[in-house]
Amino acid sequence: MNMIYKQTPLYRFLMFCNETNLERTILDCGAGGETPPLGLFAEHGYTTYGIECDPVQIEIANTYAREKGYTLNINQGDMRKLDFADHSFSFVYSYNSIFHMRKKEVNQSIQELKRVLKPGGLLFANFLTVNDFRCGDGGDLGENQYEQFDDDLPVIHSYYSSDEPDVMFSDMELLYKEDRVLERIYEGTQIRQGFVDYIMKK
Amino acid sequence: MNMIYKQTPLYRFLMFCNETNLERTILDCGAGGETPPLGLFAEHGYTTYGIECDPVQIEIANTYAREKGYTLNINQGDMRKLDFADHSFSFVYSYNSIFHMRKKEVNQSIQELKRVLKPGGLLFANFLTVNDFRCGDGGDLGENQYEQFDDDLPVIHSYYSSDEPDVMFSDMELLYKEDRVLERIYEGTQIRQGFVDYIMKK
Repeated sequence: MNMIYKQTPLYRFLMFCNETNLERTILDCGAGGETPPLGLFAEHGYTTYGIECDPVQIEIANTYAREKGYTLNINQGDMRKLDFADHSFSFVYSYNSIFHMRKKEVNQSIQELKRVLKPGGLLFANFLTVNDFRCGDGGDLGENQYEQFDDDLPVIHSYYSSDEPDVMFSDMELLYKEDRVLERIYEGTQIRQGFVDYIMKK
Repeated sequence: MNMIYKQTPLYRFLMFCNETNLERTILDCGAGGETPPLGLFAEHGYTTYGIECDPVQIEIANTYAREKGYTLNINQGDMRKLDFADHSFSFVYSYNSIFHMRKKEVNQSIQELKRVLKPGGLLFANFLTVNDFRCGDGGDLGENQYEQFDDDLPVIHSYYSSDEPDVMFSDMELLYKEDRVLERIYEGTQIRQGFVDYIMKK
């Protein structure tokens, strides 16, 4: 009986990956933190790699991996400039992570994710949307980019309209796209979040 | 290594169910067909029950269950009038099924799902929304209810605006709601589907 990963949209990505005949190698960009979803792919026989900018989040993820007996290969890295050769991985994803930058850097990162992906490989990425309750809060950097705080730490959040990211994937084939507005309870309060998820084929 | 169920929103429901201390008994209304998602709950130690109106779909589900060695307890039934006592189950759901009726019957069914749920139990249900590409096609029964065809068989589809189902759950506590518009490839063509999912506590 396996645990259920809270990053549930990645179950759909895993299903798409399983349906291909590609070698089972996968890269997570923004791979740190508790219950790292690379564990889900490791459970399903994937050779996993992850990069993460925050050493604390790397250690949290690696503690989890040790407890589970997984080798997740999560190391420090920057998704704006990936330290991997072209066409290194069959599958690449970034979940709830890539929007913590200015849009120019998000675009740069998506180009990097595509670069390290094999031809025919699959990419998952998701973006915050302007439907999110926090869009508009904090220091306004223009184009729905805001300086905000997560856990008292300063962070940038970039918010997209639901079709705005399409252009970054115009050289790929759409397999799945989902524009979601969700309401959930966070620390006793009902909040509204907005995301748009993409699964694309190179 | 378990298979991935295509009904991915139920992974989130399973996560919510796992976080309670309730007895692991679950009912699926509309439980038939290939890869019945009750199998996911069976894998996680739940005692499962399902009802399904179509004997063919029951047999398809039971064939799957036999192959996997699961006892899913799927029998013929009608979710408008459930043959179970009040407060029978900790968890009740209906996935991609309840909207195949007129809205009056959908409401009647939701009341039945709530009736057989234990106090403190969790309910998942999802509804087609007016964002769906098929909303408006077929014989118009009013209030976004249409006579359509699935696999050449006549069927009713009821479509909801994203907040319209709220009233059916006004006596429950919202844990999670997700309004989703998805684009995917179906038989070689890109289609747009709309759903709103609810996870509610009694």
